Amino acid sequence: MSKLVIIGGGGAGLTAALTAKKTNRKVDVTIITERELSYSACALPFVISGEIGKLEDIYESMELICSKSNIGCIIDAATSVDTGKKIVKTAKNGSFSYDSLIIATGGMPAKPPVKGVNLENIFTLCSVEDARSIMEKVDNSKNAVVIGGGAIGIEAAVALVDLGLSVTLIEGFDHVLCRFFDPEYLEIIEDRLKEKKVELVLGHFVEEIVGEKEVVSVKVAGKEIPADLIIMATGVRPNSKIAEDAGIETLKCGIKTDWLMQTSIKDVYAAGDCAYSKSMITGKLMLSQLGTTAVRHGTVVGMNAVGETVAFEGVLGSMALKIFDFEVGRTGLTESDAKVEGIDVVSGRVKHTTKAKYYPGHKEIDMKLIFNIVDRRIIGGQVIGGETVAKEVDLLALAIAQQATIEDLIGLGYSYTPPLAPSHNIVVLAAENAHRKIMRLEKMRKKKC
Amino acid sequence: MSKLVIIGGGGAGLTAALTAKKTNRKVDVTIITERELSYSACALPFVISGEIGKLEDIYESMELICSKSNIGCIIDAATSVDTGKKIVKTAKNGSFSYDSLIIATGGMPAKPPVKGVNLENIFTLCSVEDARSIMEKVDNSKNAVVIGGGAIGIEAAVALVDLGLSVTLIEGFDHVLCRFFDPEYLEIIEDRLKEKKVELVLGHFVEEIVGEKEVVSVKVAGKEIPADLIIMATGVRPNSKIAEDAGIETLKCGIKTDWLMQTSIKDVYAAGDCAYSKSMITGKLMLSQLGTTAVRHGTVVGMNAVGETVAFEGVLGSMALKIFDFEVGRTGLTESDAKVEGIDVVSGRVKHTTKAKYYPGHKEIDMKLIFNIVDRRIIGGQVIGGETVAKEVDLLALAIAQQATIEDLIGLGYSYTPPLAPSHNIVVLAAENAHRKIMRLEKMRKKKC
Repeated sequence: MSKLVIIGGGGAGLTAALTAKKTNRKVDVTIITERELSYSACALPFVISGEIGKLEDIYESMELICSKSNIGCIIDAATSVDTGKKIVKTAKNGSFSYDSLIIATGGMPAKPPVKGVNLENIFTLCSVEDARSIMEKVDNSKNAVVIGGGAIGIEAAVALVDLGLSVTLIEGFDHVLCRFFDPEYLEIIEDRLKEKKVELVLGHFVEEIVGEKEVVSVKVAGKEIPADLIIMATGVRPNSKIAEDAGIETLKCGIKTDWLMQTSIKDVYAAGDCAYSKSMITGKLMLSQLGTTAVRHGTVVGMNAVGETVAFEGVLGSMALKIFDFEVGRTGLTESDAKVEGIDVVSGRVKHTTKAKYYPGHKEIDMKLIFNIVDRRIIGGQVIGGETVAKEVDLLALAIAQQATIEDLIGLGYSYTPPLAPSHNIVVLAAENAHRKIMRLEKMRKKKC
Repeated sequence: MSKLVIIGGGGAGLTAALTAKKTNRKVDVTIITERELSYSACALPFVISGEIGKLEDIYESMELICSKSNIGCIIDAATSVDTGKKIVKTAKNGSFSYDSLIIATGGMPAKPPVKGVNLENIFTLCSVEDARSIMEKVDNSKNAVVIGGGAIGIEAAVALVDLGLSVTLIEGFDHVLCRFFDPEYLEIIEDRLKEKKVELVLGHFVEEIVGEKEVVSVKVAGKEIPADLIIMATGVRPNSKIAEDAGIETLKCGIKTDWLMQTSIKDVYAAGDCAYSKSMITGKLMLSQLGTTAVRHGTVVGMNAVGETVAFEGVLGSMALKIFDFEVGRTGLTESDAKVEGIDVVSGRVKHTTKAKYYPGHKEIDMKLIFNIVDRRIIGGQVIGGETVAKEVDLLALAIAQQATIEDLIGLGYSYTPPLAPSHNIVVLAAENAHRKIMRLEKMRKKKC
């Protein structure tokens, strides 16, 4: 019987194991993981906020999940890989031979090298233990500081405001979520955060965390902000050491993979936060580190490691985020990204409603589509508003993957009924807006000739 | 200045007028319509149910809309078209010359040739006046019968139940919505209707409507069902007489069009419920008669009539429907349709949740995807469940139009965050389900060889 060993039991590792078993029941699959619990770290902010009732709701026993699917589960730390002998060794002196290996070791929360960073009541938000510690501390806290304005940082800030704390969010770049949206949307997002009493300090890095044993305040931008607790949401550093030590090719900070998500060594695959994979649009290798990317990596390597040949279609960076009662989402390139890549674009933007405008409970929604002006194909989209944002993002992600043009989107055969969707579809309207811009450009060019 | 005349001010006619103006502001656009009010007939059931507070909320003055966009608005009935002299005449002795003409005359509610069909308190549900009459009658009614189990019939039945009436829905075919879903979903839909106390009489046509002046009962399937009011939702017959009289080619019951939605006469276009257009999948001419099709026709003819060259991409029959707290949607071919067309298919079906399963308020959702087994391209999809169904339909409609394969959908770069969407996407899961079926089929074939 062919043997598949997977190092890591997060989203990528577990998806790979389950996919491998579904693909070929005869393969002997073993996960080696230090995690006794299986959960999505993306759920943690919503446990802290109280939206999800109990911490126990979000996790399941790793061993139980594995045993249900006839997958071996070793709770242990993999310490080395011998890619010649095809053996993985573990901290508890385990030795596991494999025919195929998947490295899905994830990442470690990155902490900035700032004075005071190791004081008490400074937390990351990556594990069930982190969430438990934060929830214990929140009860006797008034002031919180969140460092890092990415998705997790924003969700953490929202959760703490919902619990009644005074919250300051510090982001070293000029905007929160700055890799993900164009400035016109970033301003709206930041206004929403401010309206809901999240104090924003943007464009400044933390200078010092002040305290003796416990944190007392944070020095930033010439101010000293009181803090009973701090959440560090400053990204994740890939765990690629075991791969590097095994002679597997790594890039700046993660494992290099090819189109099948295979590493530089045959029969060794990498997936999830530790693995580079290609951008669907630029074709360049990138670290995505989204939960969905981990699952998608896991699906591909789970199939390829047991003999299928499935290409990883590439990362679009699709994201959805709930900020209080406001939803934001995006996929593909922003206009700013496109500029960096040297792609000339035309965009279309509209504001619309999520249901018929006369149907009670409809919400506002605002969408921008970005097209390559040369071939008129969509390369990115951003959506903000009241509901269904995640689903709009999924449609745009499909449109990008399928290289849909402005005209294709104008022709979208959408559905309509007043309580669920308006008679005019927002994607069509945004594409029409872009189409008119192109027509105007063409007319101007003709006049000049 | 070039002149565009549009006969009809419904979804198709008005969209065409607005699109023409947006495309070329210099064109002189005139709508000739008998409708003083502009509204979507799809909104009427929700006014009757009380979900939309006031009838006035759903309509706007036709003249006001037109004047805002500098479109001429003639409230009158077009009586004839002279395609040689390019002149339209009206009942009030108007005479309008055109360079381009759009016929968007819509349809008339079809009434079955049954004894008693002209008694009092039998209503159609196509106009604001219809809705007003029904609302007046509902107040002193106990028993209602809806004839016709299409979308409008179901929405009307739901509205009347919500108002506390005893409702019987009669459908001559064996199922409600039978053109739109496969049997396994039809059963679920019908069970939902029955749970909510809609009495269903399926597979029987009405034999007689009983009453002297006012309706008293309906005879069907050997029973006599008491009825204080009846809603006839038995479809719409295209208004194509004016076209036929003008020598424009018509088919069985509507106007024939080409890929630009131009009729058999140059510079004369047709759009909306009166016009045939092509199925995106089979390429055959069909009458779609959905509100969205009318809008999409209107967009295409609005551009083509002022000099653009835009193909109508074809009808998918995308539909969404709210049945009490339950949503249903579909697009493309059903498995039953595919059989009729001689297309061999493989399907994938999954049940899933609309948000993370541990996030409160998530709902169940059930999706079936249908693929052509030869090229693995998606040709249809059906979704039922608690929320976001309309948006799932839109994504599937795009997938069909872009000829996405099973593998393309498995690679979908979707978004995820627990309060908005689960970590595994339902489209991906359904595609994976179909993929595994195909793999099993291939293995079985290899074994046989």
